[in-house]
Amino acid sequence: MSKAESKAETLKPRLPRGFVDRRAEEIAAQHRMLETIRASFELYGFEALETPFVEYTEALGKFLPDLDRPNAGVFSFQDDDEAWLSLRYDLTAPLARFVAEHFDALPKPYRSFRAGYVFRNEKPGPGRFRQFMQFDADIVGAGSVAADAEICMLMAETLNRLGLAGRYVVKVNNRKVLDGVMEAAGLSGPEQAGRRLTVLRAIDKLDRLGVDGVRDLLGAGRKDESGDFTKGAGLDPAAAQRILAYVALQADPSEGADRVAFWERFFAGWHEAVGTSETGREGIAELHAIMRLCAAAGYGHDVIRADPSVVRGLEYYTGPVYEAELTFPVTNEDGQTVRFGSVAGGGRYDGLVGRFRAEPVPATGFSIGVSRLFSALQLVKSPLLHGAERPGPVVVLVLDRENMADYQRLVAALRAENVRAELYLGAAGMKAQMKYADRRRAPVAIIQGSNERAAGEVQIKDLIEGARAAEGIASNAEWKAARPAQFSCAEAEMTAQVRAVLARHFPDAAD
Amino acid sequence: MSKAESKAETLKPRLPRGFVDRRAEEIAAQHRMLETIRASFELYGFEALETPFVEYTEALGKFLPDLDRPNAGVFSFQDDDEAWLSLRYDLTAPLARFVAEHFDALPKPYRSFRAGYVFRNEKPGPGRFRQFMQFDADIVGAGSVAADAEICMLMAETLNRLGLAGRYVVKVNNRKVLDGVMEAAGLSGPEQAGRRLTVLRAIDKLDRLGVDGVRDLLGAGRKDESGDFTKGAGLDPAAAQRILAYVALQADPSEGADRVAFWERFFAGWHEAVGTSETGREGIAELHAIMRLCAAAGYGHDVIRADPSVVRGLEYYTGPVYEAELTFPVTNEDGQTVRFGSVAGGGRYDGLVGRFRAEPVPATGFSIGVSRLFSALQLVKSPLLHGAERPGPVVVLVLDRENMADYQRLVAALRAENVRAELYLGAAGMKAQMKYADRRRAPVAIIQGSNERAAGEVQIKDLIEGARAAEGIASNAEWKAARPAQFSCAEAEMTAQVRAVLARHFPDAAD
Repeated sequence: MSKAESKAETLKPRLPRGFVDRRAEEIAAQHRMLETIRASFELYGFEALETPFVEYTEALGKFLPDLDRPNAGVFSFQDDDEAWLSLRYDLTAPLARFVAEHFDALPKPYRSFRAGYVFRNEKPGPGRFRQFMQFDADIVGAGSVAADAEICMLMAETLNRLGLAGRYVVKVNNRKVLDGVMEAAGLSGPEQAGRRLTVLRAIDKLDRLGVDGVRDLLGAGRKDESGDFTKGAGLDPAAAQRILAYVALQADPSEGADRVAFWERFFAGWHEAVGTSETGREGIAELHAIMRLCAAAGYGHDVIRADPSVVRGLEYYTGPVYEAELTFPVTNEDGQTVRFGSVAGGGRYDGLVGRFRAEPVPATGFSIGVSRLFSALQLVKSPLLHGAERPGPVVVLVLDRENMADYQRLVAALRAENVRAELYLGAAGMKAQMKYADRRRAPVAIIQGSNERAAGEVQIKDLIEGARAAEGIASNAEWKAARPAQFSCAEAEMTAQVRAVLARHFPDAAD
Repeated sequence: MSKAESKAETLKPRLPRGFVDRRAEEIAAQHRMLETIRASFELYGFEALETPFVEYTEALGKFLPDLDRPNAGVFSFQDDDEAWLSLRYDLTAPLARFVAEHFDALPKPYRSFRAGYVFRNEKPGPGRFRQFMQFDADIVGAGSVAADAEICMLMAETLNRLGLAGRYVVKVNNRKVLDGVMEAAGLSGPEQAGRRLTVLRAIDKLDRLGVDGVRDLLGAGRKDESGDFTKGAGLDPAAAQRILAYVALQADPSEGADRVAFWERFFAGWHEAVGTSETGREGIAELHAIMRLCAAAGYGHDVIRADPSVVRGLEYYTGPVYEAELTFPVTNEDGQTVRFGSVAGGGRYDGLVGRFRAEPVPATGFSIGVSRLFSALQLVKSPLLHGAERPGPVVVLVLDRENMADYQRLVAALRAENVRAELYLGAAGMKAQMKYADRRRAPVAIIQGSNERAAGEVQIKDLIEGARAAEGIASNAEWKAARPAQFSCAEAEMTAQVRAVLARHFPDAAD
């Protein structure tokens, strides 16, 4: 053997970190989840769009989706003409490119949904992949906050349809309110941009660190349990207190049967937080309008509510921002009980399409983290993921390989009547073939030896009944007699008999 | 305006060459085609698998799928640890990696299907993209030609289910026969590998160039219409004649009612072509066995047949090779009438998984070119691509924007009864809103002005009936009276009335 051959033979079969294969059961379960989301988006008048995985790097822009990790990268490579290409890192930047490219031909407002894999050249970790799926819905060309309200309601509707009613909340905030609060706290002007960022990051951590933790991060800084020190925004106590007072303006879900009156009272308190800031007041008015619209459509503040702690990392957001959070408890890596947390989020990004055009184009939308939502549905044992359990194929065993054509004919007869079936194609003996049928979750095995062939018969082995009998579940003799685990019949009767066995075990299975 | 801003604003929205967007109608039509293929593969006992888009370059190997374009490239980039990664260029190499990685855990033979985009860093052209979809089925771990027969029958079954019965032929050949013929023509040994490649390429062009063209390419060479000269294999006339005699061994579909007898006679002629070559004789025996199995399952040689001109470019094929060709005529770029041609193909590749393992693993499978098959179905106006035409959403128009919450309530009422509906979210007047509804293919518009609101009523505008009336189709006065294009009703009746209009226009639409 040459050295090259020896090397080739020891090539290790493996995937790069952060990439995974997916098997049949997971594909089928996730497919059912995705179809439910799609039906919900279509009910709301959204239209499918698919953009390619590769775009010009400059078309994707500099927007990377996590302020905490600004160096998070994209996969890029150069084209023959030296232009840089990248794998898309989200489904929003490609939408902006698409809308700008076909602006005049599109009905506006344009409601689009997209589902597909995106790529991040980042350090992978548990539940963190370099290829993962997003499912997005956006409305482009609508400046009205009614569009933001539609998006919030769509998020709620989608989670309802996924069977999560009562186990989530859609939290809404407005970048303009956040800007107003910071303005009122004396954090205006381009020279304080860095501090504002630190403040936003601190607010974003309210859920995890609590009020005291956020106070530390607004002031000098905070030392965590491991002793690591995070530098704070360095605000004076009065300014920090102003921001903390704003963050404390949480809606009480138990309060107020009259939704409209509830929001009137609720937002009265917000005006203090933004003081005289024009931007802040505009932001509150928008947020209030969104809450009124959602309330009119029947969504109480237990389902969709304004929440001052929602920040969303992406720098391109310009107005309302929103996040769908699953509220049921899970145990985290440190053994603590926490809420499951965010599975979808988004906001208004009026500048993104405008990068390609002279005039700005208003847009708003959200993105579902498909893997995370899928994990959540697994955790709550969603019936959606299981549906009617599908059996494996009927396996026609091969006793004498020189008569392959006869066995092939049996398989063809089953398939002609739409019975999922296959011929055993390996070289193993009967015992191994039965084991194979078991691993394929075959409900039935067909057996034909030379005696049966001569008599024009086949043996039908009911593997599900057989497994039950083996487990002693059906030890009753009469039961056994009524439902034999193996019986013979004429070849011409085979398909009908197999269908009868399948109908007994899978009464709900579609044909 | 700063220079940077000005540049950003003129950024051109465009895609790199060879990448395309796909809109809702195409997505829906292709989805129906893919679901049909999937159902067919599942009926045959195949199981879904999904591998990621990115793999280690070395795991994908050196196998590029077109002998005529050996420099055709993959998109590659380096990982943080300097390892080279590539976008997958087919769905076979990733399957080989997957099977090798999980060899002991998989039931064997392992029947897998995969659908997804693959990428080629090649010069794009009409109908030739750098991202395109493949749909593959493979059987790994079965050395028996019964597996190849299953694959051929699966190709036929799938095309039948797509409504193409009678408009295709599955052609089958065997690399071993080709090797035997070349051995018999004196083209053995590693030093003649280049000539053998030239011969295979010449045979592959039989359809396009005819016997005389192939004869030239087997001899000194051939000058085409444009005057370009292609160097030939340089065979002497006797050797060339031997190969041409082999290529002429075409089955006559009009011949022979008894399929088994047909193949007995047919293969008798092949033995002359391979002479004393052991490999050649083995190849014929395999091919004959495949034909017998297909005949036993009911496929005549009008549907699946041995054809000496099938070569398939990929160097990794080691035994049977097959190709599904659509036989209906189309007009090519030069205005000539030609057969539509190949839409799927594959073969046996016993060495591919073995790259990762000490022992070889037999495997066979095929790949459907999804875009090409989709074009074919469009050409024959397949009803599969249209299905029940789905209407656009019901559009609730907005006459006074200060009452947005009321309009939102109307939309919510429709959606609650599963009527696809949306609120007009733009800022335009009535006329533009009607135009918008038209572009969305809305079947119904809901109109509520202040008078209607005061009366607790809405106007329901039947846009399909209205369009008919405008075209004078329903000019009969009684007809118009019976099916008014616009009518008012109580708000509480709105959803039921809209559903009645939809049921009239789309009686077959699923709810």
